[in-house]
Amino acid sequence: MAEGEATRIMMGVNESTIKGYPHASISSSGAFDWTLQKIVRSNISGFKLLFLHVQVPDEDGFDDMDSIYASPDDFKSMESRDKARGLHLLEYFVNRCHAIGISCEAWIKKGDPKEVICHEVKRVQPDFLVVGSRGLGPFQRVFVGTVSEFCSKHAECPVITIKRRADQTPQDPIDD
Amino acid sequence: MAEGEATRIMMGVNESTIKGYPHASISSSGAFDWTLQKIVRSNISGFKLLFLHVQVPDEDGFDDMDSIYASPDDFKSMESRDKARGLHLLEYFVNRCHAIGISCEAWIKKGDPKEVICHEVKRVQPDFLVVGSRGLGPFQRVFVGTVSEFCSKHAECPVITIKRRADQTPQDPIDD
Repeated sequence: MAEGEATRIMMGVNESTIKGYPHASISSSGAFDWTLQKIVRSNISGFKLLFLHVQVPDEDGFDDMDSIYASPDDFKSMESRDKARGLHLLEYFVNRCHAIGISCEAWIKKGDPKEVICHEVKRVQPDFLVVGSRGLGPFQRVFVGTVSEFCSKHAECPVITIKRRADQTPQDPIDD
Repeated sequence: MAEGEATRIMMGVNESTIKGYPHASISSSGAFDWTLQKIVRSNISGFKLLFLHVQVPDEDGFDDMDSIYASPDDFKSMESRDKARGLHLLEYFVNRCHAIGISCEAWIKKGDPKEVICHEVKRVQPDFLVVGSRGLGPFQRVFVGTVSEFCSKHAECPVITIKRRADQTPQDPIDD
């Protein structure tokens, strides 16, 4: 096989929902590790990773209930805090790529993750999309919805869903 | 990345439904080409391909309507013809792997493809499963069912579905 242009793998990544755990969700970092181990392997120059983080505008609704908004600046500082959290997340993945030597890009969008991911697939046209999943049962899925299921159906590129390993399930399996 | 054991990719492959076209279906060979180009690339020693062909017992029902069965041997010759067709299919993929130098295994099972593929995933435990799909719309899918959709939901490993390229759709899109 001649090596042409690198295979462009888009990865949807998100923050952990666990309080005080300021990093990538368990399923995001699991999907990233899996992609490196099983797909990229030693062929560092053959792949490029494209990290997309979608921030949900209401994501911090509960945190914000105890906040007091007295001036327009209070909202600005909230926005910049959200932005900082998203950047911190992408920094984690970009740093890991840099350490390995694999080429990458990362960016943040706001909106409904499943819709935005499919929209960005259309725009960026990766070779395929990797998404992590909590691997919940059908009963749990009813309440939380799953981004991976939606993307598998609607994204205009092949999609591979990496389920969280059973031994990494947190105390509350809805957490990630 | 240190190279450990090869990544084992299972591929469900089937014959073309187009009369007089004795080879792999368009979607199977498309999924195979895609896997080589986008995943394996030049890293031949990093991967092993596992080809599973599931023969549907009734698959040749229509052909058999014009046949006359006069002795038990007639059934035996039919069975050996089916077997020969399945072997011919696997030979195509094994030959292509041999030409490239990528390690592979191939085997045939009888039954309902979606059930058998999921059962074999459980038994063989590949790192992931690749299945081709005709990429039919929801209306067409109602009538033909899709193996890829079932496997995405039920296989105990990550699944990547490779849709047939639009420019490869045969005259009747149900054909493959």
